[in-house]
Amino acid sequence: MPTIRDYGLVPGHLPAGPRNAITDVPGVRVGHTTVNTGSHRTGVTVILPREDVYTHRCTAAAHVINGFGKTAGLVQIQELGQLESPIALTNTLNVGLVYDALVQYTADACAAKGDKLRSFNPVVGECNDSTLNDITDRVIGRREVFHAIETASPDFEQGCVGAGTGMICHELKGGIGSASRMLTVAGREFCIGVLALCNHGQLSELNILGRRPGEKIREHIQGWPRPEDKGSCILVLATDLPLSSRQLGRVCRRSAVGLARVGSYWGHGSGDIAIGFTTAHDINREDDAQIATHAIFNEDKMDPLFLAAAEAAEEAVLNALAAATTTVGYDGTVCHALSEFADLLG
Amino acid sequence: MPTIRDYGLVPGHLPAGPRNAITDVPGVRVGHTTVNTGSHRTGVTVILPREDVYTHRCTAAAHVINGFGKTAGLVQIQELGQLESPIALTNTLNVGLVYDALVQYTADACAAKGDKLRSFNPVVGECNDSTLNDITDRVIGRREVFHAIETASPDFEQGCVGAGTGMICHELKGGIGSASRMLTVAGREFCIGVLALCNHGQLSELNILGRRPGEKIREHIQGWPRPEDKGSCILVLATDLPLSSRQLGRVCRRSAVGLARVGSYWGHGSGDIAIGFTTAHDINREDDAQIATHAIFNEDKMDPLFLAAAEAAEEAVLNALAAATTTVGYDGTVCHALSEFADLLG
Amino acid sequence: MPTIRDYGLVPGHLPAGPRNAITDVPGVRVGHTTVNTGSHRTGVTVILPREDVYTHRCTAAAHVINGFGKTAGLVQIQELGQLESPIALTNTLNVGLVYDALVQYTADACAAKGDKLRSFNPVVGECNDSTLNDITDRVIGRREVFHAIETASPDFEQGCVGAGTGMICHELKGGIGSASRMLTVAGREFCIGVLALCNHGQLSELNILGRRPGEKIREHIQGWPRPEDKGSCILVLATDLPLSSRQLGRVCRRSAVGLARVGSYWGHGSGDIAIGFTTAHDINREDDAQIATHAIFNEDKMDPLFLAAAEAAEEAVLNALAAATTTVGYDGTVCHALSEFADLLG
Amino acid sequence: MPTIRDYGLVPGHLPAGPRNAITDVPGVRVGHTTVNTGSHRTGVTVILPREDVYTHRCTAAAHVINGFGKTAGLVQIQELGQLESPIALTNTLNVGLVYDALVQYTADACAAKGDKLRSFNPVVGECNDSTLNDITDRVIGRREVFHAIETASPDFEQGCVGAGTGMICHELKGGIGSASRMLTVAGREFCIGVLALCNHGQLSELNILGRRPGEKIREHIQGWPRPEDKGSCILVLATDLPLSSRQLGRVCRRSAVGLARVGSYWGHGSGDIAIGFTTAHDINREDDAQIATHAIFNEDKMDPLFLAAAEAAEEAVLNALAAATTTVGYDGTVCHALSEFADLLG
Repeated sequence: MPTIRDYGLVPGHLPAGPRNAITDVPGVRVGHTTVNTGSHRTGVTVILPREDVYTHRCTAAAHVINGFGKTAGLVQIQELGQLESPIALTNTLNVGLVYDALVQYTADACAAKGDKLRSFNPVVGECNDSTLNDITDRVIGRREVFHAIETASPDFEQGCVGAGTGMICHELKGGIGSASRMLTVAGREFCIGVLALCNHGQLSELNILGRRPGEKIREHIQGWPRPEDKGSCILVLATDLPLSSRQLGRVCRRSAVGLARVGSYWGHGSGDIAIGFTTAHDINREDDAQIATHAIFNEDKMDPLFLAAAEAAEEAVLNALAAATTTVGYDGTVCHALSEFADLLG
Repeated sequence: MPTIRDYGLVPGHLPAGPRNAITDVPGVRVGHTTVNTGSHRTGVTVILPREDVYTHRCTAAAHVINGFGKTAGLVQIQELGQLESPIALTNTLNVGLVYDALVQYTADACAAKGDKLRSFNPVVGECNDSTLNDITDRVIGRREVFHAIETASPDFEQGCVGAGTGMICHELKGGIGSASRMLTVAGREFCIGVLALCNHGQLSELNILGRRPGEKIREHIQGWPRPEDKGSCILVLATDLPLSSRQLGRVCRRSAVGLARVGSYWGHGSGDIAIGFTTAHDINREDDAQIATHAIFNEDKMDPLFLAAAEAAEEAVLNALAAATTTVGYDGTVCHALSEFADLLG
Repeated sequence: MPTIRDYGLVPGHLPAGPRNAITDVPGVRVGHTTVNTGSHRTGVTVILPREDVYTHRCTAAAHVINGFGKTAGLVQIQELGQLESPIALTNTLNVGLVYDALVQYTADACAAKGDKLRSFNPVVGECNDSTLNDITDRVIGRREVFHAIETASPDFEQGCVGAGTGMICHELKGGIGSASRMLTVAGREFCIGVLALCNHGQLSELNILGRRPGEKIREHIQGWPRPEDKGSCILVLATDLPLSSRQLGRVCRRSAVGLARVGSYWGHGSGDIAIGFTTAHDINREDDAQIATHAIFNEDKMDPLFLAAAEAAEEAVLNALAAATTTVGYDGTVCHALSEFADLLG
Repeated sequence: MPTIRDYGLVPGHLPAGPRNAITDVPGVRVGHTTVNTGSHRTGVTVILPREDVYTHRCTAAAHVINGFGKTAGLVQIQELGQLESPIALTNTLNVGLVYDALVQYTADACAAKGDKLRSFNPVVGECNDSTLNDITDRVIGRREVFHAIETASPDFEQGCVGAGTGMICHELKGGIGSASRMLTVAGREFCIGVLALCNHGQLSELNILGRRPGEKIREHIQGWPRPEDKGSCILVLATDLPLSSRQLGRVCRRSAVGLARVGSYWGHGSGDIAIGFTTAHDINREDDAQIATHAIFNEDKMDPLFLAAAEAAEEAVLNALAAATTTVGYDGTVCHALSEFADLLG
C-alpha cells in the first residue's frame, strides 16, 4: 500500500508513530467491508476505540467544519462528551441501515451478557459516492457492518477499501487515509492519529506540500463529470492523551487545518466533520461513584497537540490519494488515481 | 379526544387557531402509524410541511435544549437552514430503520418523476419508550412509515398514537400533543403551531397552570419503576411567518419555556430537541437564479412570536397529557393517565 | 432585607444554604457600589470567586440564553473553560469603563507582586437601567469598581444596590437577588448558588409560585412608560462541585428554567446570560506540569444539580423583587416595588 | 506601500478589486491612529461599514476560530445577525477604553440629531502587542478613536499602522493587511474584502504560496524572545453580496482557510476571530414595518464566495507581512520585516 512518503514527501515536522496510522493509539482497531461488484463501489469502515466501548465509554468530541452532511450521533457526543459506539463510515444513503446494524450489534453484545439494550447512540459518518456507486441501492447492511467489526485490526488497508471504495478527492480517486503523530508528554509517549474518509476538494486547488499539479493533471482528465456539490470528508481523530471533551474539541478543530493545507476550502456541498475520542479515560457505565478522578491536560500546553492534529490530518488526506487506485464506476465513469501522475510531483 | 381546555384550563394569553394544532399552519399535515400489539407499544408519527418538501425545501432551524438524544438530520439543518424531508418521530432504537424508510420514500418519489436520488437529509426524532415497549425489536419499518405519510392529514389524533403510543410524561401517560397560536402581522393572520412528542419530566415537578398535583397523585402510583434517565421531548414547530433560519431558531428556543412552565428542568437523560420550519419560503431545488427575494420578519418585533412559541409548546405538552389514556406495558407495568386524576385539577 | 420567604413562599424542593445566597459557596464574596444621586440610579456589583482569581483560575462556563446583550469576556470563557477575572455587573453603556477598571485593578495586583500584566480577560455583564438612570453619563469608573472589590464580603445586600439600583423586573422594581441550594454528594455538602441582576420580564407574565398578580397590579401602575425592548438578566452561578466546563455549562443552562418559572420567555430585547464557575479546581497560572489530576462529577448523576440551578435561579429572581424598594427615576418616573402589593400574594 | 504582488506572487485564482482591499466594497472606509512614541508601538484601526451604521444597521456575522481573545460585541452579533457599530481594532488591554470611546462617539452622533443613546453594541477586536509595546499603559483613548473614525477613507495604509503598529506575525513584523476578490453574480459585480490585523503564527510554519523560508530566516533572527502564547488574528470581512447572517457566517468561516494557507494552525494562545458584514441590506432602526423584503443569495451557489473569502484572507495576511517595516520595541527588541528577506522568496 503506497503512502505519500513513498513519493519522498514528508508532511510537517513531528514524528509519525510506528504504523503512521490511527491505530498507533493503543487499543484502536479499524475494519473494512468492501463492496466492489456489479453496480456498486462502496463499503463500510469501522473504527473501534476499545474492546467494549458501550460499557467503557470514551471521552469524545465532535466538530462540524461544514455541515452539509448526514452524520448521525453528534448531538449526544456534543452534550455528554462521550462515545459509546464504534464509529462507522459509509455512503450517504446507507446511514440508516448502518445505524440499525450498530444497534443490532450492541443489542447482541448486551444480550450475551444477560443485559437488555434500551438506549444507544450509534455514530455513523458518511460521504457521497454516487458518481461511481449506484447509491440508491443501499447495499451495506447488517452482514457488512458485522464483518467490518469482527475483522477490525490495528493493521488495515487504505485507499479504495471499505467506505473509501467509491470516493473521489480533489477530482482524483480518494478513499481511506490515515496518519499519526507522536508527542512526548510528562516523560511518556502519546499519540494523535487521524483516519480520513476523503471525498472532497477540487483539482484546481490541490496542494501537495506546495506542489500544485492540478492544471497539468486537468489536461489528462478533461470532461470529468463530477457534480460539484457532492463531496465530504469525515475525519476521525483518536488519542490516548488525557483530554476533556472541550479540549478534544479544540484538537479536532485543527484537523480542518490539514484539509486546508491540501487545498480544501471546505466547499458548500462538502459535509466536513471531525469526530474525536480519547482512550485515556474509562467512563464505566457500571460505575456508581458520584465523583471520579481524571487526568487532564494543562490547557496552556496545547500547541503541540494542535500541530499534531493538523499534520496527521494533512498526511491522512495525502495517504488516501497515494493509496487509491484508478477506478471505473458503475456507469463507466473512470476516476484516475494520483499514482498515474506521479511524475508531476517531482 | 380530550384537551387541557376540557378541564377549563386555558394556557397563556394569545388566541389558538381553529384546530389548536400544528396543522393550523396551512399545508401542514400529520400522520401516525400505531403499533399496539403483543410486546409493542410504539409507532411512528410524521409531520409533512408541504406536498413535496424534497423539491420545495423549507427554511428551517433546530435547537438542542438538552442533547441526550439521537435525533438524525440536525447537522445539515443547522448549516443550511433548510428542511428537505418529512419529520418522522419514533422510538430510540428505531431511528435507523425509519431513516432508511424516508430514504426509500423519497427515492421512490424521485424515480416516479424520472429522477435519481443521490443525496438526502432525513430528519428523525426519537424518545425512549422502553418502559412500556419491548424496544429492542425495532418494529417500525418501511410499511409503517409509508402508511403514516400516506394517511397524513390536517386532522390527526393526539395522545397514545403513533410515536406517542408508549411514551411517559411527568410519570403519567404521555404521547403526542399539539397546540397553536395566531398572530396578526401586517394585517394578515399567521400561525405558530407546535407538535410535541412528550416523554419527559418528573411527577414532583408537574405544574399545570400553577396547580401542583404531583404529591397527591404519587399516593396512587407508588412503586413506579421508571428508570430516571430515559426521557426526552421532541418539539416540532411550524409557522407560515416569513422568518430566516436564524430567526426561526430564536423562536424554536422558546419552546423550551413551554417545557419549563409545565415543570421540566430539561433533565440530564432527556433528549429535548426543537425543530422548526416555515412554509413562507419555497427554496426550489430547481431554481437556478443566484439571488432570490425573501420576505423577512422585522427582528425588533419578535416578542409576540416568542410568546406564541412558549404558549403553544406549553399547551402541546398539556394536551399530550390530557389526551393520553392509561396504558399497560409489555411486561405488565401500568402507566396511569392524567384523566384518572381529573378531580385533583379543580 | 426582605426575601420571598418572608411572604411564606418557598420555591422548590431542595434545601437552601445558611445565607440562601451565592456566598454559601465557600470563598465567594460579593461587593457593591451604589450610585443613587442626582440623575443617577446605577452602580456596580462584583462577584469574587476567590482571593486571587487571576493566578488561581477557576473552571468556568457561559450560556447565552438570549444574546441581545453586551457582556464582555464570554469568547475566552467558552474556549478555555476558565475564569481569570472577578465578574462585574453594571449598566449597558458603562461596560467599557468597568472593563478598563478591572484591567487596572489586576495590573496593580500584578505590579504589587513584581509582575507585569500583559493579557487579561475581564468579565463584565450588563443590564439596561436607562428608564430610571441617565445612562449616557457612564458614572461608574475606577473608583466605584475598586470600592466594590475592596468591600466584597460573604454578606451582602440585595435589591436596589450596586448594579441593581436602577433595574426593573416584570415592570416592578428589580435589582440584585440571590439564593442557594445544598446537595449531599459522596457524603459531603456542596452548594450551588446564583446571583441574578434582574431587569427583565413583563408584568402580565409574572408568576410567583403559581400566583399571577399581574392583572391586579396593572390597575395600580397604568401608564408605565417602559420601552419594551430594554431588558436583560445576568445570572452568575457559583459552585464548589467538581465539574468540567462542559458540565458547568449544562448546569448554567438550567438557570434559564428559573427565569421561565417566574414568567420570562427570554424576550427579544432581553440579554439573558448565565456565567458559571466552580471553585473546586485551582488552575494555577504558575503550574508547569503538562498533566494534572481533576476531580470530575459523574455525568450520569447530574439531575439534582440541574434542579438546584433551576430552583436557585427562580428564588434569586423572586428575592430581587422581594428586596427591592419603590424608586423614583432621574426624570420622575416611579417604579413600584412588589412589596407594595404584598396583599395580592396571599 | 509594498504588497505581496510586488514580489511577483499572486495568491489564488479569482480577480482582485481595483484597490485589492476591503474598501473595494462600496461605502466601506478604514481609518487609523498610530501611536509610535516613547514606550508605545500601538494604535487603533476602525472599519466603517457605511455612513451611519447605528441607524442603518448591516446584516452581520461572527465566527470564533480560536477563542483565546477578548473581542467585545460578538454575543449580540451572533443573536441578532446585525452590526450597529464601527468595528475598532486595538491592543488587548485597551479594549475597555476603545469600547467607551465608541459609546461616546455614537452618543454624540445621536445627540446631534436630538436623540438620546440608550443601548449600543460596540465591536472591538484586539491582538496583543506587548512584545513591542508597553501595553499596560493603555494609551488609546477617545481622542485616538475619534481621529481614526474622522479620517477614515477608502484609501488607507497597511503594515505598521493603527492597531498594526506593534503586531508580530509568524515571528516577523506583522500588522494591518487587506485584499479583495470580485465576483460576477446575476450579471453584476460584487466584492468580498478582508482586512486582517495579523499578530499570529510561527516562523517554522510560514508558507508563502508554497515557499517555506522559515528555517533560513531563523538563522538571522535567533534569540527571538517572543512568548509563545500571545498571538491573535482579527479578520474583518466585508461584502455587498446579499447574504443572510447565517450565510455570512459560512463565508466568514472560510477566512480561517486563508490563515491556514499561510501556515497558521490557529494556535492555543491566538484569539483568531472573524467578523463579517454586508452592506446589501439597510436594517433601518426607524423602520416600523413588521415584514421587509430582502435579496438573499441562493445557498446552492455559495462555493465561489467561500473561495473568495479564503483567497482574500490569505492575501490580506501576506500583505500585512509585505507592508510591514522592521520595528524596534519599547525595550529594544527588534522585530524584522519580511522585506529584509526578500531574496529568500525568489
